[in-house]
Amino acid sequence: MHWQQKFSVDAEAVRASEIRELLKILADPSILSFAGGIPDPALFPMGEFSAILAELQAQPDLYRQSMQYSATEGYAPLRAWISETFSSQHTSLSPHNVLITNGAQQSLTLLATALISPGDAIAVANPTYLGALQVFGIRRPRYLTIATDDHGLTVDGVEAAFKQGVKFLYTVPDFQNPGGMTLAEDRRLAIVELAHRYDVAILEDTAYRSLYYDAPPPLSLLDIEGQHLGSGQWQASGRVVQLGTASKTLMPALRVGWTIAPQPLIDKLVQLKQANDLHTSTFNQVLTNQLARTVLPTHLKALRSVYAARRDAMVETLQRHLPNGVHFTAPQGGMFVWLTLPEHMDARDLLTKALDELKLAFVPGAPFHANGGGQNTLRLSFTGYEPPVIHDAMKRLCALISREYLAEVPL
Amino acid sequence: MHWQQKFSVDAEAVRASEIRELLKILADPSILSFAGGIPDPALFPMGEFSAILAELQAQPDLYRQSMQYSATEGYAPLRAWISETFSSQHTSLSPHNVLITNGAQQSLTLLATALISPGDAIAVANPTYLGALQVFGIRRPRYLTIATDDHGLTVDGVEAAFKQGVKFLYTVPDFQNPGGMTLAEDRRLAIVELAHRYDVAILEDTAYRSLYYDAPPPLSLLDIEGQHLGSGQWQASGRVVQLGTASKTLMPALRVGWTIAPQPLIDKLVQLKQANDLHTSTFNQVLTNQLARTVLPTHLKALRSVYAARRDAMVETLQRHLPNGVHFTAPQGGMFVWLTLPEHMDARDLLTKALDELKLAFVPGAPFHANGGGQNTLRLSFTGYEPPVIHDAMKRLCALISREYLAEVPL
Repeated sequence: MHWQQKFSVDAEAVRASEIRELLKILADPSILSFAGGIPDPALFPMGEFSAILAELQAQPDLYRQSMQYSATEGYAPLRAWISETFSSQHTSLSPHNVLITNGAQQSLTLLATALISPGDAIAVANPTYLGALQVFGIRRPRYLTIATDDHGLTVDGVEAAFKQGVKFLYTVPDFQNPGGMTLAEDRRLAIVELAHRYDVAILEDTAYRSLYYDAPPPLSLLDIEGQHLGSGQWQASGRVVQLGTASKTLMPALRVGWTIAPQPLIDKLVQLKQANDLHTSTFNQVLTNQLARTVLPTHLKALRSVYAARRDAMVETLQRHLPNGVHFTAPQGGMFVWLTLPEHMDARDLLTKALDELKLAFVPGAPFHANGGGQNTLRLSFTGYEPPVIHDAMKRLCALISREYLAEVPL
Repeated sequence: MHWQQKFSVDAEAVRASEIRELLKILADPSILSFAGGIPDPALFPMGEFSAILAELQAQPDLYRQSMQYSATEGYAPLRAWISETFSSQHTSLSPHNVLITNGAQQSLTLLATALISPGDAIAVANPTYLGALQVFGIRRPRYLTIATDDHGLTVDGVEAAFKQGVKFLYTVPDFQNPGGMTLAEDRRLAIVELAHRYDVAILEDTAYRSLYYDAPPPLSLLDIEGQHLGSGQWQASGRVVQLGTASKTLMPALRVGWTIAPQPLIDKLVQLKQANDLHTSTFNQVLTNQLARTVLPTHLKALRSVYAARRDAMVETLQRHLPNGVHFTAPQGGMFVWLTLPEHMDARDLLTKALDELKLAFVPGAPFHANGGGQNTLRLSFTGYEPPVIHDAMKRLCALISREYLAEVPL
């Protein structure tokens, strides 16, 4: 049986992530990895989680019910927490605006299925989250990529894409994965206005939004749209859909995320979610609800303080030791620093050398570019190690980059 | 914003389950429901589950790791348990033949995406599992429906479909949802042979297979194919893909299911799963692995004994009180009894009256038919109540059916 001959046109469009292949080597524990965008498990609130488990076990009816099938939309108290937490004066969210998913990744899957027909144009930042490109790719869209700078999406770039007609713009406005930059407030307002002028939906991925290490980020696109439309208008006229997740702030293996959207879209997403996997684990939703209501605020403060020090260690070391011709973002939150090497350098070659000589890994940036390019870019995650380890590793990486930079500079 | 105008061609193809709409009334706790295909939560092994949670908490490294991101393929010990448990002498499964999913429903989603291009023909039993039709529907296939009798799929029907060229046959051979019947052993062999003659894949859904109340069901299609091909041939030549789940035997809200397939197909499904939602909750997989290895055998014995008595109560009462012109299956396992009313009766009308007069619910059978028909059929689940309740409720339902039957018989 040649299964390959049986695959659907959409399945043909899926490729194994190049990064995944490159990084299989990471199973080797002697390698220092600045590759994955994953939280440090040492920071998981395990004690608090155990206390919440014990509380649940002390409520036999709820405990038993948490193991049963449940509504596709999600666990009502968790939907309520989300709608209350992310509501603003102008959007006035209700639990009916919330669908619980298996992490923001599944929110992307359902939104892509709901909105993209093969050949539809969609707009994404250059660079953008690779996992989103994987999901969208199965729907075989046409990508319009939007240039970014240190303040995120360029407004001209967004308007140029919207003018050509796109189904939606996908964006990570806060501490972007992979670029680390945050969309400036005036651009947020301009982009929301453009979305209404050109009738384009916006998928706002807020995965990193609460991980800020300096000041909180500007108002979300959702909130800005609420203000722009005026009170009570978002339900009928909202074009901004917001994706959130507990993976970066609490624990990834809960696999709990959500989509906030006007109800006609939520209704369609619920149908798709029901077909996809019926519902997200009731047990995990019950636990996430309790974590969100009791542990999250304190835990976020702790995460911010620990990750800020790691961010500082990485940024300071790069500032001191990177050759001047290498550009990097100094992110105000999130998990990532983004490096742009001189055009003649290739980050894949650099990775081979870094693994070989330094036992150190990062992610080459090319796959984050929907239509190619970016061979000279790379992503570093600063969440995995304590400052001295980061400092030492970055120093060595900078030395390698300097050597390669000089070796390859055309004389 | 008119979201409806933004929906993709595939999203347009999804409809809210008619059953779901009909049964919203079930939120009313005064209604006796024989509708849902759900396990009785009173039988969940909560004590054993608590013990397993405590054991996990006593292993701090594993406990913490169970909350972290993990491999898309699934938790290695659980994949090993599945490959060992469902291996036969001839198939010799390895963990690489197993992908962990969020219940068998997500296995169907990934298989449908991998294998169905719009317009492809696929073969399904008439009637068949509604949730499968919901998933397949999003891929917009052409359905070839295969007639069934009390011994499951008819071999002539299967061959007629295969001759027309189909991508795959989807089937629930054991104690079918919704029909309750079990595919006879000689038919299993004939269908596996036909799959090879006509180069058709078979998706074997074993959701109810271990819930047998008399003798165990015949060999699975997977095992029969292993024998048919001879030792060591299945990896290269297997066309049978098997879907399993912990939802019916352990607890649904674990949301743990699996797909067993030759590796080239597993590789493609892993890519699709990674895009879909990265991976199934590590925590739930770790817990399921322990439950499967320690609690499952004893628990299955208990379930079989309790559900057998409920099955008996339903079958005996129907036998005694149903009018002779109504046909029903006497299932040897699973959760369902299937009624075929005389052609002039409509199960939807009967449901309205049953809800109204008896405060009793079941599922009308029409939606289980891929290409329409079946208005005179209905499904009863016997897992939710103890025998006396079932006996009394069925007596009253039979009286209603008899009244309607006589009222509507053309004189």
